[in-house]
Amino acid sequence: MAMILILGAGVMGTALAVPASDNGHKVLLAGTPLDAVPVARMKAGGTHPKLDAPLSEKVTILADEELGAEHAEAADLVVVGVSSPGIAWAVNRLNGLLRSKKAVAFVTKGLDREGERIVTYAETLPPQIANMESFIGIGGPCIARELANRCPTSSIYASRDRAAAAFAAGLMRAPFYRLALSEDVTGVEACAALKNFFAIGVSAMQTRYPDRLRADCQSRNPTAAAFNQAAQEMALLCERIGGSRASAFDLAGIGDLHVTVGGGRNSRLGHGLGLGHTVSEVMAGELGGETVEGIDTARIVGSLLRQIDNAATLLPLATAITTAVLDGGAFSFDFQRI
Amino acid sequence: MAMILILGAGVMGTALAVPASDNGHKVLLAGTPLDAVPVARMKAGGTHPKLDAPLSEKVTILADEELGAEHAEAADLVVVGVSSPGIAWAVNRLNGLLRSKKAVAFVTKGLDREGERIVTYAETLPPQIANMESFIGIGGPCIARELANRCPTSSIYASRDRAAAAFAAGLMRAPFYRLALSEDVTGVEACAALKNFFAIGVSAMQTRYPDRLRADCQSRNPTAAAFNQAAQEMALLCERIGGSRASAFDLAGIGDLHVTVGGGRNSRLGHGLGLGHTVSEVMAGELGGETVEGIDTARIVGSLLRQIDNAATLLPLATAITTAVLDGGAFSFDFQRI
Repeated sequence: MAMILILGAGVMGTALAVPASDNGHKVLLAGTPLDAVPVARMKAGGTHPKLDAPLSEKVTILADEELGAEHAEAADLVVVGVSSPGIAWAVNRLNGLLRSKKAVAFVTKGLDREGERIVTYAETLPPQIANMESFIGIGGPCIARELANRCPTSSIYASRDRAAAAFAAGLMRAPFYRLALSEDVTGVEACAALKNFFAIGVSAMQTRYPDRLRADCQSRNPTAAAFNQAAQEMALLCERIGGSRASAFDLAGIGDLHVTVGGGRNSRLGHGLGLGHTVSEVMAGELGGETVEGIDTARIVGSLLRQIDNAATLLPLATAITTAVLDGGAFSFDFQRI
Repeated sequence: MAMILILGAGVMGTALAVPASDNGHKVLLAGTPLDAVPVARMKAGGTHPKLDAPLSEKVTILADEELGAEHAEAADLVVVGVSSPGIAWAVNRLNGLLRSKKAVAFVTKGLDREGERIVTYAETLPPQIANMESFIGIGGPCIARELANRCPTSSIYASRDRAAAAFAAGLMRAPFYRLALSEDVTGVEACAALKNFFAIGVSAMQTRYPDRLRADCQSRNPTAAAFNQAAQEMALLCERIGGSRASAFDLAGIGDLHVTVGGGRNSRLGHGLGLGHTVSEVMAGELGGETVEGIDTARIVGSLLRQIDNAATLLPLATAITTAVLDGGAFSFDFQRI
């Protein structure tokens, strides 16, 4: 059996401890400085505040200050479970912890700029982490609470180093956690970030054209049209970022977009935009104090769109989302453009 | 302005009269022998029993016995709006009606066998209808009631005769009815039929793993995984039938699958299967007397699967659906296979 070190005791880091420990591995689940509350609760044998089920006794909970290089040294695989605001902490910690080469798998999603180029963590993180042997990106439709409850979930592990992705997936795969492999790590990472962004626009369609005869008041045709439009635009942007179009039409793209629309913070922002509110109104209201990853992605997508001729024609949904997020006005999506 | 003859006064035929008449065209909406009730109601100025909004006065309602060759002769475009059980009536009527070459657009979806080959209406109907100048297939995510209410809807008009598809789309396109064009008519037709079939399996996931903490009790990860799996399998089957994989990842495939899962008869059958009922139990119960198009498609897909090596491995979701439908047992989908 192996030893798996998970950095970040948020919902996703904690959920990943479930298949890992079910597989018989020893798991070290280390909180960030922001995870003091869940760390204290789980150390006392309780559940993570946002999850339902207790962890196996094979999982050892560590506070940030308890985590040392000896833990990393003992680990066969390191998994980074933080969201994008935690990535600087994770990079810093990994540089202090890793004394020998290790594969590191990231669920963290985000896009960044390198000059004019738009890049993913698959490009930006490897040069920053001295002893990271291979970068593995984890994508696909996974609500952490459902994974933690062993609800069947499919994900995709991607790495240029196929053996590393296969090794990580081999440790993590469980009957309820089905894992595909991909070498298109840039595409998987790009889609994983873009899906948050597009979920804002697709979710806006769920509220913009209400159907009073349905229990949830949501019409279906506009949402399906926008879902399809998002898939096409995600494929185009994925390719521009250096990934394969096919990744947009697979687990990290349409699969994850499917699960992201209709739930979560990006979707709630979209619902507000669909009702005619501005981003700042929604963020000052029901999403006050929350991190909405699609907003950060919108800033990057905005600069990518400026590099594409006829972006407004080729990418009308992306254009409408970036305009609402960056210019702060109402979400105005001309349905006739798609 | 043009004259458009619509055959079939069911919900879809009637809904298509809305963009057609909004565009200023004269519309003849002719009922089948089974449409006596809606025809009588709409002739009296009322609405179709399953729709909300009255039709424009530009729409003339005809009972089956009132429809004659002079109506077809005056039409610039004929649209067949029946579902698959009505296709024999439509073919028979078209052969009696069409005295000169006309383009005919079909919303009817289905697969058929020609010996060992699986074919779509794009292959089977043209030889059966003497004066059909071009076959146009209509696909994409369109709930008829929403279209009739002018809720934004995207569809795709496909024909080997691109000019014919463009002509039909040009007559029908409206601000709320956005139309893409495709030359992959076999792919669009195949996907339009397959999406009903796959919606059964994806919808089964909505009920199989309930999440008691959600208002709708539906977990999300298994459905998204199955949606993605359905898209991949639809692409593979579409290619086998002679269409392009790309059509599965566009409006007629993922777009229409998106709208079909969670609503309609195929989905309700899936929900029953997800709860452990057999097809015959569901069809004897809440779906008694209803046509579930995915069941007919399952018979054809079953024979297609028998021609594919390793079908159970390559197409686990299709295999599980056909097994449940054809063998009559419980729906048993091994999530570990995907």
